[in-house]
Amino acid sequence: MPKDQAEAEQVTRRTGLKPAPGAGSAKLYEQMAADLEDMIRRGLLGPGDRLPSVRFLSRSRGISLSTVFQACYLLEARGLIRSRERSGWFVTGAPLSRPPQPDAISCPPTEARTPDTGEMIFSILQGVRKRDSAGLASPFPSPSLFPLGRLSQAFSRAGRSMHPDQVHDDLTPGNARLVRHIARCYQVQGIAVGEQEIIITNGALEALHLCLGSLTRPGDAVVVESPTFYGSLQALETLGLRAVQVPTHPAEGIDLTALEPALRRHAPRACWLMPNFQNPLGSLMPRERKRELVELLARYDIPLIEDDVYGELFFDQERPPPARFFDTSGRVLHCSSFSKCLAPGFRIGWVAAGRHAHDIAKRKLALSVSTSLPPQLALAEYLDHAGFQRHLHRLRARLASQQADMADAVHRHFPAGTVATRPRGGYFLWVQLPPMFDALRLYQEATAQGICIAPGPLFSVDQEFRNCLRLNYSCEVEGRVQHALVTLGRLLSHQRAPG
Amino acid sequence: MPKDQAEAEQVTRRTGLKPAPGAGSAKLYEQMAADLEDMIRRGLLGPGDRLPSVRFLSRSRGISLSTVFQACYLLEARGLIRSRERSGWFVTGAPLSRPPQPDAISCPPTEARTPDTGEMIFSILQGVRKRDSAGLASPFPSPSLFPLGRLSQAFSRAGRSMHPDQVHDDLTPGNARLVRHIARCYQVQGIAVGEQEIIITNGALEALHLCLGSLTRPGDAVVVESPTFYGSLQALETLGLRAVQVPTHPAEGIDLTALEPALRRHAPRACWLMPNFQNPLGSLMPRERKRELVELLARYDIPLIEDDVYGELFFDQERPPPARFFDTSGRVLHCSSFSKCLAPGFRIGWVAAGRHAHDIAKRKLALSVSTSLPPQLALAEYLDHAGFQRHLHRLRARLASQQADMADAVHRHFPAGTVATRPRGGYFLWVQLPPMFDALRLYQEATAQGICIAPGPLFSVDQEFRNCLRLNYSCEVEGRVQHALVTLGRLLSHQRAPG
Repeated sequence: MPKDQAEAEQVTRRTGLKPAPGAGSAKLYEQMAADLEDMIRRGLLGPGDRLPSVRFLSRSRGISLSTVFQACYLLEARGLIRSRERSGWFVTGAPLSRPPQPDAISCPPTEARTPDTGEMIFSILQGVRKRDSAGLASPFPSPSLFPLGRLSQAFSRAGRSMHPDQVHDDLTPGNARLVRHIARCYQVQGIAVGEQEIIITNGALEALHLCLGSLTRPGDAVVVESPTFYGSLQALETLGLRAVQVPTHPAEGIDLTALEPALRRHAPRACWLMPNFQNPLGSLMPRERKRELVELLARYDIPLIEDDVYGELFFDQERPPPARFFDTSGRVLHCSSFSKCLAPGFRIGWVAAGRHAHDIAKRKLALSVSTSLPPQLALAEYLDHAGFQRHLHRLRARLASQQADMADAVHRHFPAGTVATRPRGGYFLWVQLPPMFDALRLYQEATAQGICIAPGPLFSVDQEFRNCLRLNYSCEVEGRVQHALVTLGRLLSHQRAPG
Repeated sequence: MPKDQAEAEQVTRRTGLKPAPGAGSAKLYEQMAADLEDMIRRGLLGPGDRLPSVRFLSRSRGISLSTVFQACYLLEARGLIRSRERSGWFVTGAPLSRPPQPDAISCPPTEARTPDTGEMIFSILQGVRKRDSAGLASPFPSPSLFPLGRLSQAFSRAGRSMHPDQVHDDLTPGNARLVRHIARCYQVQGIAVGEQEIIITNGALEALHLCLGSLTRPGDAVVVESPTFYGSLQALETLGLRAVQVPTHPAEGIDLTALEPALRRHAPRACWLMPNFQNPLGSLMPRERKRELVELLARYDIPLIEDDVYGELFFDQERPPPARFFDTSGRVLHCSSFSKCLAPGFRIGWVAAGRHAHDIAKRKLALSVSTSLPPQLALAEYLDHAGFQRHLHRLRARLASQQADMADAVHRHFPAGTVATRPRGGYFLWVQLPPMFDALRLYQEATAQGICIAPGPLFSVDQEFRNCLRLNYSCEVEGRVQHALVTLGRLLSHQRAPG
């Protein structure tokens, strides 16, 4: 009997479910995930059990391998199954009723104020850099997730084929081959971005700075989310701009009903937002909400600086579109990079700058002439030859799986009443402790033990979110990481004690 | 008879000079150059004659090979001899009385004004980028001068040995091995720079921007030379700063007697100067003058942002010290890079930021997180293994030789009354036409023919220096370059004609 058939019979025997060939719904993978979840719920697959192989599930349902993978990633992100290297997926035994997630929209002060938290941010980041043994506080994905070997081969090839004239020809806006690759990615997503509006930058952060510098003058107001990426606060502080912090939902992103009055009141010169897998919340704006955002900003003629560096790290079937997808007027400056999805340390980012491309290119030339050429060539070379899509699939699967593990561990070790977001992409959990806990105190006590966290107050002008922290789950949740989470739980239990 | 001895006798026969073993002066190479120049002057060596070999001259005088090379470079820079690949040095037949050089100190307006020439600079640079077939207008050294092969080998080695953790460990301030190399270079020059104050940047230009941003607030005044590097004007415009342009001598740099009143009148927050081989003049501040500059600025407690990107491209015996050499108080922020002397296109620069290192590192993290890692590793690898010093020797010799050729060609083809600087390093000639000529008109007419120049008005707030231009002599002066110079001469001769 062939292996597939044997497996089919075994599954049917254990579960009573017959493989259903062909379903036809738009969300096949969700249906498949629901079926598997149901089997787990009914005890037909118990903790430690191995799921039928992906190949079997694909053949037996007449659906593609990638749809099955998607279903598994979804269950993994829900914490119900977990993959083991080369052995397939196993049922975790996690509680089927998912732990509660934070649901309240933030409520920041309504005034616009120039941030002055730069020194605190720098000192925490420096502390993290020196002592973050478990990587929980790191803003970066774990470098072990990336194809360093292939990238280094691409480097060698690029080095051998480098021509002296490229030093001039590949000046800002950047290497034409790499620009073409990036433009093609937009095309695949159905986004109208021309090659001539793409400018290669020293990581997305430089792109974001160039946009901000180009659109504002000191004293202007700029809209950010609440909580927001601390990098935007640093940028606003450096340029002497005022931050308008707008209420943001932990799962669905910025609240448009709060945004509109803020636009009227503060007349901001730009919005700096992260509609996909926002840092630190992990929130993902629903597709329609993004369209409304773009339309709203067009009505007020306000440009959107869109930070989409986590967009490729989605766990669902498809890449969520950026807000730029809905832009027809060149008002959305879309910034992204290869730092989170392929090559951290290369510092290769870009902006598709729409109608602002001329000014941004001018600023880039004046600020740093050009982006380093060899990493651009190596990336172009890698994208020509190697399996970028295969790498992304693996990366997303691992992140989904590790998110589930980390959420489990937080649920197990942190105080009762703790809730954590379960983003559908990226590599951050936003953890909300009951109100009496103090994340800055936790940061200090944990740092003394060689464990770091990113405390909530990093992410706002007024150091709100005292009872929140951001955890990076891109390192595997075992050994050092597991130990660190246990230690954090213990430190928190002491905070509850009197004194 | 051994070859050396035969050569000695031949020289003695032709010149009447006996090789003098050992001299003992501090400037042996100048003495040697003077002797050779004397032989040419007296007709003992005529146009087209080959000089005795370097080995012979070294043995016969009992001086080192490098001293002889220095003497030859000096004569080359004076246009009296020229090297031919593998064949030695030959007498050029250039006139012995050197063509006059510009000698007048510039006389800029004394008010401080925010530059608004960014758009003109950008448009000229874009034109240059598209059409500069002979490289005369390029701000970059010709890439053919650099050891691309060895650098690409270094890349391969660096790629193979790259460790995932380096992505975190080598964040700003930068890769420790590269920082150590840079610190060692300072030590060799007797300059007290600690590793902890070095920050690796995206080229020197980012370093200069970070310094300027850290030291100033919008509206502040900043001292620059006159003429000045257009990059400083772009930076001042971007940051809303006012430029105080101080008179500068074409050979000896900024005029300290004019600087002091400017300090008193404008209370600038910083000076941005280029004491070594200033761009565009090529001026070199005498050693003592640099000391006085540093002392003067210390008295007024004004920091100096020192742009020293051309410092390694000297033609004399020794690297001229930067102003930082004389700084004992951490007030000089020394910026440099590998872009002009080793690896253009890598965009790896640095700042030794003295007492400002903390703030600069903070700004660098906020602006672009970190400098691309692979090029840093490749440079560290190259500096560990390959012959950097050998490369620099060859590079300097070629530049000296090409300067002589270009000065010859300018003298031959440009209108009577034209004078050009003869810098003792770098790769720019500053050409001053008689007052009735218009370099902007020349720029336009020449661009239409695919030949570009950098017109004088690029280099000042008020578009002065209408009759001046900057020429890049890092491409060999033959073929395209020779043809371009002839064309420029022809276009200028038409300018003289009525109408």
